Amino acid sequence: MTKRPAIVSAGMTQFGNLQGKQLLDILIEASTKALEAAKISPSELRGIYVSNALGEVTSKILSSSTALADAIGAKGLPAERVENGPASGSAAIRYAAFDLLRGGRGPILVVGGEKMRVAETEAITDLISMISHPTAEYPSGATMPALAAMFARLRMERYGIKYEHLAMVAVKNHQNALKNPYAHLKKPITMDDLLGKDSNRINPVVAEPLRLYDASPISDGGAAVILTDGDSAASYAEKPVEILGIGESTDYLAVQDREDPAALKAVRDAADMAYRDSGVSPSEIGVAELHDAFTILEIAISEEAGLFKPGEGHLALERGETQIAGRIPINPSGGLKARGHPLGATGVAQAVEVFWQLRGEAYGRQVKGARYGLTLNMGGFGSNAIAMVFGIV
Amino acid sequence: MTKRPAIVSAGMTQFGNLQGKQLLDILIEASTKALEAAKISPSELRGIYVSNALGEVTSKILSSSTALADAIGAKGLPAERVENGPASGSAAIRYAAFDLLRGGRGPILVVGGEKMRVAETEAITDLISMISHPTAEYPSGATMPALAAMFARLRMERYGIKYEHLAMVAVKNHQNALKNPYAHLKKPITMDDLLGKDSNRINPVVAEPLRLYDASPISDGGAAVILTDGDSAASYAEKPVEILGIGESTDYLAVQDREDPAALKAVRDAADMAYRDSGVSPSEIGVAELHDAFTILEIAISEEAGLFKPGEGHLALERGETQIAGRIPINPSGGLKARGHPLGATGVAQAVEVFWQLRGEAYGRQVKGARYGLTLNMGGFGSNAIAMVFGIV
Repeated sequence: MTKRPAIVSAGMTQFGNLQGKQLLDILIEASTKALEAAKISPSELRGIYVSNALGEVTSKILSSSTALADAIGAKGLPAERVENGPASGSAAIRYAAFDLLRGGRGPILVVGGEKMRVAETEAITDLISMISHPTAEYPSGATMPALAAMFARLRMERYGIKYEHLAMVAVKNHQNALKNPYAHLKKPITMDDLLGKDSNRINPVVAEPLRLYDASPISDGGAAVILTDGDSAASYAEKPVEILGIGESTDYLAVQDREDPAALKAVRDAADMAYRDSGVSPSEIGVAELHDAFTILEIAISEEAGLFKPGEGHLALERGETQIAGRIPINPSGGLKARGHPLGATGVAQAVEVFWQLRGEAYGRQVKGARYGLTLNMGGFGSNAIAMVFGIV
Repeated sequence: MTKRPAIVSAGMTQFGNLQGKQLLDILIEASTKALEAAKISPSELRGIYVSNALGEVTSKILSSSTALADAIGAKGLPAERVENGPASGSAAIRYAAFDLLRGGRGPILVVGGEKMRVAETEAITDLISMISHPTAEYPSGATMPALAAMFARLRMERYGIKYEHLAMVAVKNHQNALKNPYAHLKKPITMDDLLGKDSNRINPVVAEPLRLYDASPISDGGAAVILTDGDSAASYAEKPVEILGIGESTDYLAVQDREDPAALKAVRDAADMAYRDSGVSPSEIGVAELHDAFTILEIAISEEAGLFKPGEGHLALERGETQIAGRIPINPSGGLKARGHPLGATGVAQAVEVFWQLRGEAYGRQVKGARYGLTLNMGGFGSNAIAMVFGIV
């Protein structure tokens, strides 16, 4: 059987406040790292897919894929940019995978990047709000933190989740990020910081019940992977990581229109599709990078993606099952919460982490015995979701 | 042999100054027309690919594909947006075609749209200039008209092209647009208007040697096609139009870096690739929609895409060979020049015109005897190009 498209190399920039670096600098740096890691010259590339969400606004650039091809000396090849809000990274990997699956040639570079620290937090929050419903949500000030807060309240009431559980996600992911050299937030935090007597100062309310440490930071950053068809992958890398399955689905754009506003139907459908496509079942997943733009989302997605039963995600978290040494480690990279969340880079960074984890190259944060990995990258507030199952087979 | 992906339906909005219509309205209208033309319900769709270049800036919208899926009642399916500057339309068709070629299911909606009339011409020209080189061109004021003017000068000197030839392109394409109900400019012009004693008033210089009528207008508009795999296409339409070949290539982003600044190497490479992919030769092309953002580009692309020998495009034009009744009709729709050029819609509108022409549905502007059609959609000032060969086989 023909093998599936495979990742043969990966690279990342530091995530954080990358002062002095523009969008193109970030894309170039991530690309160069992935190319050098596999000793692939830019002139060998057969295609470039760039993931970026906000380039027109933050960086005054159109067709950033063409600009990147030029900048790294890889002309004369197809170069495209894909935008799907915060799910842009997985969308670009999907396009590249389809290119290979239809019989196209590799190696293909997929790079996601975002320059977000171009304005004050308020202006950036407004920019990101462009993914909400343009008439039903955006004009009412339904920013992502506001939507996440309502979602958290519903989910907490339904399943008996306490604020302590949200804090556990933050503490775990900050802990993981301490061992990730590329992470934005390298700041150990404790349950006492988030819940103790100084918590109103350290962890102030942003949108009740969510507090400062429940939200991912505003980060610049880039991440890149190099894909080839599965059959030639072995000539580029010793342990290529195959993309075994891809799923994508959409839901009502406005949360208020959904049958169950506390569910993430697009996430469930996308994950189901990726499991079917790959033949891998949720119980076989050994490591997962999930879209924890807010702490509540890690818990909710872990259930919607089938890793735990509905309402049991916070119990598994409480038992330590999602820690690096646990049964099913979630966000060993630190996740969006602590590694950072440069919109266009996030989906690619998730794939980079799974690539490193499955190959045993995650150093201090290495999970044990994972054969299959899952990424779940979400757009809007759950209006679009892309799931991928990876494995070394 | 398995057939190639095929277009089974098409639809367009009016192109022009669509006051009161927002980007999403435009995308919905074009989509609905294509769906209704083939009696396909939105719930039957298996995927949506949106082409749009400037939505973040002009319309404050991210992930417009998700918003569109929601708006037309087509949830639970993959929905992506592709951006490749003025070549975005063909880029979205390419993604959809790859989806089908890798074994994905149709019908798939591809819709391109742009809301451009949101500011004064000067501000729009600045927006479009984001496709030029961010450091070598943009800060020097190298707008598209400026780059086109230098390109025209070089090409005119090399091949003995006169201003009369540029005017002939404008007159021909305005004439064609009069017979296209969707065209932006429905304004008959004559050689005397453009060259006669009142020409300085009617056709003032914009960037020497280019004048007002050498540039495409700033248009709002949308265009949509529905694709299926070739084998099931017959169940949706009587004469499906197959996408027989696709080619894409890039060149140096800054014109000044190119070995020959008067050549369009990416266009040549993309067209060559599309001919190879399709097995169709340039001499078999019976109708072509070429990226005439400026009149000189129609002449140049007609040569670079192999329809005429180098330096002979203006001679073929002079002989009337590119008119609707000519040997190889170019831009029977009116082209970008007169149908209009809403960035994200253009590549899709080119495919719509070829679909109608090959099926004999182009009414007053119908070309005769065309079996194969070519679209050539360009990004930047020739830094990216996508070519497609279509046919009823």
